[in-house]
Amino acid sequence: MARLPRKNDPASIRARQEALGLDGEVTALDLEPWARAAESVTGVAVIPVSVAQLRVSLGEYELDEDGAVVETGRAEEEVTVPLAHTEGGLTASVHRGAKAVAESGGFRTYVIHDRITRASCFVCKSAGEALELARWVEGEVDAMRSWLREAGIPELSTRARLREVKTHVVGPMCHVLWRWTTGDAVGPNMMTRNSYALNMGYVMPRAPVRPERAILEANMGGDKKPSYEYFQHGHGKTVIAETTLTEEAVRRVLRTTIDDLLDLSWAGTHGSVASGMQSVAFTPASAVAAVFAATGQDLGMVGTSSMAHGVGRRVDGGLHVSIRFPGLEVGTVGGGTTLPYARTWLALMGCAGSGKVYRFAQLVAAAALALEISASAAMATAGSENFFRAHHERGGLR
Amino acid sequence: MARLPRKNDPASIRARQEALGLDGEVTALDLEPWARAAESVTGVAVIPVSVAQLRVSLGEYELDEDGAVVETGRAEEEVTVPLAHTEGGLTASVHRGAKAVAESGGFRTYVIHDRITRASCFVCKSAGEALELARWVEGEVDAMRSWLREAGIPELSTRARLREVKTHVVGPMCHVLWRWTTGDAVGPNMMTRNSYALNMGYVMPRAPVRPERAILEANMGGDKKPSYEYFQHGHGKTVIAETTLTEEAVRRVLRTTIDDLLDLSWAGTHGSVASGMQSVAFTPASAVAAVFAATGQDLGMVGTSSMAHGVGRRVDGGLHVSIRFPGLEVGTVGGGTTLPYARTWLALMGCAGSGKVYRFAQLVAAAALALEISASAAMATAGSENFFRAHHERGGLR
Amino acid sequence: MARLPRKNDPASIRARQEALGLDGEVTALDLEPWARAAESVTGVAVIPVSVAQLRVSLGEYELDEDGAVVETGRAEEEVTVPLAHTEGGLTASVHRGAKAVAESGGFRTYVIHDRITRASCFVCKSAGEALELARWVEGEVDAMRSWLREAGIPELSTRARLREVKTHVVGPMCHVLWRWTTGDAVGPNMMTRNSYALNMGYVMPRAPVRPERAILEANMGGDKKPSYEYFQHGHGKTVIAETTLTEEAVRRVLRTTIDDLLDLSWAGTHGSVASGMQSVAFTPASAVAAVFAATGQDLGMVGTSSMAHGVGRRVDGGLHVSIRFPGLEVGTVGGGTTLPYARTWLALMGCAGSGKVYRFAQLVAAAALALEISASAAMATAGSENFFRAHHERGGLR
Amino acid sequence: MARLPRKNDPASIRARQEALGLDGEVTALDLEPWARAAESVTGVAVIPVSVAQLRVSLGEYELDEDGAVVETGRAEEEVTVPLAHTEGGLTASVHRGAKAVAESGGFRTYVIHDRITRASCFVCKSAGEALELARWVEGEVDAMRSWLREAGIPELSTRARLREVKTHVVGPMCHVLWRWTTGDAVGPNMMTRNSYALNMGYVMPRAPVRPERAILEANMGGDKKPSYEYFQHGHGKTVIAETTLTEEAVRRVLRTTIDDLLDLSWAGTHGSVASGMQSVAFTPASAVAAVFAATGQDLGMVGTSSMAHGVGRRVDGGLHVSIRFPGLEVGTVGGGTTLPYARTWLALMGCAGSGKVYRFAQLVAAAALALEISASAAMATAGSENFFRAHHERGGLR
Repeated sequence: MARLPRKNDPASIRARQEALGLDGEVTALDLEPWARAAESVTGVAVIPVSVAQLRVSLGEYELDEDGAVVETGRAEEEVTVPLAHTEGGLTASVHRGAKAVAESGGFRTYVIHDRITRASCFVCKSAGEALELARWVEGEVDAMRSWLREAGIPELSTRARLREVKTHVVGPMCHVLWRWTTGDAVGPNMMTRNSYALNMGYVMPRAPVRPERAILEANMGGDKKPSYEYFQHGHGKTVIAETTLTEEAVRRVLRTTIDDLLDLSWAGTHGSVASGMQSVAFTPASAVAAVFAATGQDLGMVGTSSMAHGVGRRVDGGLHVSIRFPGLEVGTVGGGTTLPYARTWLALMGCAGSGKVYRFAQLVAAAALALEISASAAMATAGSENFFRAHHERGGLR
Repeated sequence: MARLPRKNDPASIRARQEALGLDGEVTALDLEPWARAAESVTGVAVIPVSVAQLRVSLGEYELDEDGAVVETGRAEEEVTVPLAHTEGGLTASVHRGAKAVAESGGFRTYVIHDRITRASCFVCKSAGEALELARWVEGEVDAMRSWLREAGIPELSTRARLREVKTHVVGPMCHVLWRWTTGDAVGPNMMTRNSYALNMGYVMPRAPVRPERAILEANMGGDKKPSYEYFQHGHGKTVIAETTLTEEAVRRVLRTTIDDLLDLSWAGTHGSVASGMQSVAFTPASAVAAVFAATGQDLGMVGTSSMAHGVGRRVDGGLHVSIRFPGLEVGTVGGGTTLPYARTWLALMGCAGSGKVYRFAQLVAAAALALEISASAAMATAGSENFFRAHHERGGLR
Repeated sequence: MARLPRKNDPASIRARQEALGLDGEVTALDLEPWARAAESVTGVAVIPVSVAQLRVSLGEYELDEDGAVVETGRAEEEVTVPLAHTEGGLTASVHRGAKAVAESGGFRTYVIHDRITRASCFVCKSAGEALELARWVEGEVDAMRSWLREAGIPELSTRARLREVKTHVVGPMCHVLWRWTTGDAVGPNMMTRNSYALNMGYVMPRAPVRPERAILEANMGGDKKPSYEYFQHGHGKTVIAETTLTEEAVRRVLRTTIDDLLDLSWAGTHGSVASGMQSVAFTPASAVAAVFAATGQDLGMVGTSSMAHGVGRRVDGGLHVSIRFPGLEVGTVGGGTTLPYARTWLALMGCAGSGKVYRFAQLVAAAALALEISASAAMATAGSENFFRAHHERGGLR
Repeated sequence: MARLPRKNDPASIRARQEALGLDGEVTALDLEPWARAAESVTGVAVIPVSVAQLRVSLGEYELDEDGAVVETGRAEEEVTVPLAHTEGGLTASVHRGAKAVAESGGFRTYVIHDRITRASCFVCKSAGEALELARWVEGEVDAMRSWLREAGIPELSTRARLREVKTHVVGPMCHVLWRWTTGDAVGPNMMTRNSYALNMGYVMPRAPVRPERAILEANMGGDKKPSYEYFQHGHGKTVIAETTLTEEAVRRVLRTTIDDLLDLSWAGTHGSVASGMQSVAFTPASAVAAVFAATGQDLGMVGTSSMAHGVGRRVDGGLHVSIRFPGLEVGTVGGGTTLPYARTWLALMGCAGSGKVYRFAQLVAAAALALEISASAAMATAGSENFFRAHHERGGLR
């Protein structure tokens, strides 16, 4: 086949469509809004969006000067969350979980940490030199922050702020984990630009040793591959969602019992360990992916953003359940969030634009917990009959 | 807010749209085609689809009677792959990697294994009883296969075929990993139905011990959470893609050198280990998510399907690079694949419908390897300058 | 310093002792019994051995023709276990745990699997060739078994029997996991010799592709480094020990409650997950190391043999507790087991010599479970006061 | 069997020996020196100790006020290291590796971090309360340090100094990682006492929320079970040993080539990843266990102390090899180190008593690297023939 044209002007687009024999639905929409979003844009994919209502106590948060996430307020709201997917039963399950929670007093969500990391690697001649470099880098952080502010390099992002630096020396490699906050954007490009500037404009000219090579990222940064480092320390927003389900809601809405749910949690936790999972949870990726797809998030981050640790425990008043997401890589500005459709679905939740990212992160966590609760309840019934029924009756398309 | 109606008839859909104040683009399409794909469908999300051309030697495969994947033919083709995403630079990077590979003789891809697992758990009174159950289950596999064929239970899927059973006893739990092939579908619902039938219709009535509880899935099954069990043994299609890049293609197309790529591979592999990643690779999830979003795959499976092990090595003739995907959870029938848009993008690759799933799995792997090559090359330049440039210039939307 | 002589004749030994200024206790024993156990033997280390009594129902096991472990009998015994260590409180804790178990009816132990693996790696020119090699190797297993029996190579061990072969292709590497049983010995040397013979005498001359390099072991074999592969599938003897503690024994002997123990188990399991542990247990390595040091086992295998999965659950009659050791690398013949002191301590348990290895593996597991129970009970008291007290009062030497 | 007496007075010891039918070698030594080291001491185990000479550039280190490890000097020495084991070939292999290194200029070793952790867990009513507790704890660290100094509680260790506190909230649990330095002792008992005091004397009376339960350790502390948390951040002394092997030494002493060693390193690193190992190394546990057994270290810590990350790379002048031990749990005072035999072997290295622990940690790392080098070289020969030969000829006892 001849090489296709690459540009996104209407003629090139049409030439590609014709060469590939594409017409009908996938080419019916005007592609102009996405002309700058990707190269060789040729058509569209459409995913249906369903909605679910959540009752949730949301924290309001700000970053303080040191980059700590500080709660400045809290309010209970009912929010409608968009879910883009074609998995029969998923939205119904979120509904059911959300209903049980609403009858139990609602979700409570917390943002507890906010960092994203670009991990560069300086290859030195020896471990001794790499250690010398590491000590020097750790002592230069204040000076680096000033330099970033004052260097006047046009490529620099002013929204990405360097917060801490962690070094890790292994062999002759000095890995440098640059830790950033990036405002309401996820921030991979911002921190890439600023980390590159630090590496080439600050470290390489000034370092007390001469590294043989600077690599912008050498797999300690947590990009799109789950890792223990970020299961623990977070990559994006670290969020916890919780609720205490009443006996009544468990029985009437979820059609199971607290004992059955605890037995499932016990078996599932040990099953996770036995199969070498890092996450302990049920199906957080289903909810994360559905909200991400509706709101223009990076779908390549579904795996990392779905790292989760779910916990259940009997307490006075019922069953306490919660889920910890160490790194929700979400944004409300930048990337796909400003494009058509995505911006509408973000707006539906009151999450479009600046100052909304912590709100959005909490809603993702709450939606996921709703699904965890309902899916677990179906699985906890005798023989997991209700899980089977849901898949048999709702999942007909699969 | 009042509770929204849940149905997908036109009046209910319109009522939801009005209650939520939705109009314009997200409600412009007729939702009827998705009325059975999810509950409470209320609008659409649209993602632009770009395309990239791959030159690839694809194997043709069949399952033999024992469920082994057997290669029956092989042909070199040029295939155009759809990529649904809004990450500036991603498609250009796939282009560049694919070009370097085409000039080096093309990709070669292999399907080496095909299994999907539902892991049920029988909670017994003691480890001794769980061990007795495990031994019994392992001896009943042939009988279970007959029973599945002959039971005449309408809920059973005939396409899901039980291949092996693995038991894992820990504490009083007997986890039973039911391993299936599911034809051209991913198969979670099929195997859910059949596993439920085995648990409740075969095991519970006949078992030599009386389990206190049967749980259909207790987290040893690999659903949507990466795990070592399936990083090793596969969950979906296990596929390898490889190529040997010539010196010339590395220099002229990728603008780096083999030595630089090997240095990056070395540093990145040790960085993966140092950060507790299971995968060793660069950014496979970006490509996997882009193809999945275009073709109606389950986006909640992006994380598990992106588990990958990439390797590079200097050989006669250049640089051998390859990537192993232990579990691509892909389908060409069922689920979202039969819906509008998705079916067109699958058809573009010659992957719509029955008999196409191994072809499709190979193309996902080849597209991912194209991106791995190009992104690695950008990162391998001095200071990773080209990676920085690509993100600075192409990634403006983020 | 001058280079020391290396031999183990009396004159060389004495020359080393004098050159190093060693006399007194460490040189008082005649070293002749160990002259063949290591090079440059110069003195001794002495570790005190304490003892604890266990009431345990031990299975009798044989390997069947296919290498499956089959239980042929079972008897309850009281066995005295030697513990070589200097950790104040450890033996007292084993006593206490064993007493609680004895009052609850004793331990029950099971051997469920027996394999040890040498994982060779054949580096090929491409993944395609590596896959071809893998398929061929898998088809040759019967022929390889015959060849091992009939080759008449003097270096071969006849006690190491090849049971299965698993291949794993990644990049151009074909890893071949040779799985052996090795009788009553741990077997690393036996299987090293036989695997080398297979690699160089069978595979390399006959393979349908010509590997560039055969490596006897390339880190898929599980030697002395914990790994998920063997946490799951076992490296050595896979053993489970269990008991059901009565309420009375928990209260009176362990001075805590079942609820408190369950709370600890719940928190500790989630703590394991949160810190990225593979094992879920309390302190199995303490018991494993103590028995290993007394009985001439390889102390470099303490880490791998201590991989463990402990589980607790309330059942009728009390608290069911158990521990699964996937790979106890133990022997009752060969290696250090035949040397002075070690052989006496093995004999104390009725575990010296042939036919005793499964018995010995069970006793290690039971001793470890005794310690798990008692240490957990101390930790489960309010504020873990009893754990603190035990360390404060008994641990004075530390 | 009747219950044995438990005490360590001569009559009780003798009664146990007679009841168990023990005499001869295991009862020949006077047990009085170990009467306080364990309960129910009944005999001894003896392990032969061999020796190996290392040429090593050792750093001198001090802790500064903030607990950072600071290098204050460096000197090259030749040190003789004791190895207690019965693995034929091991000492010869350390010899050979050490010789190749000596001819290449010697080892260089570095201590880069020193912390040990006790991770307590406060179980609260909700995640919200656990978060409130976590924030409060993090703000009290200075006050806690003062309290520890001034509380006048007799159980407190003054040598264990609280350095940092890290909190981790999951579910209603607030895990608190108390990070200590403990002087020249390993320190588990010291930090247990001080952490208990903090939990019960400081946190519980003053906390802004009322935890339901305080657990002294809930498996985030890294005790005797390898974990990613401490593979990264260290538990004990973090040490790197390195050397650059000359071509000449590789060829003449190690009888292989740099290319062969690099090929092995490449295959072995990918084998580690493929088998789900956390460590990337060859056989560090063999050396760690041998030095630990000779010097009275806690053998239950062999697994955790052997976590290691080894790296090789071609540099000007030869092959750079190094190994990083994140957490060597070693002491030169306290525990078994003050007992007979152990103190002599520590003294042989100039490592007995106060001020010696960093020296000792470096020597453990250097001995382990010597073994890594030699064992790798044997494995890197064609077909790994030399590895096979060493095991065949030296390993006869096994």
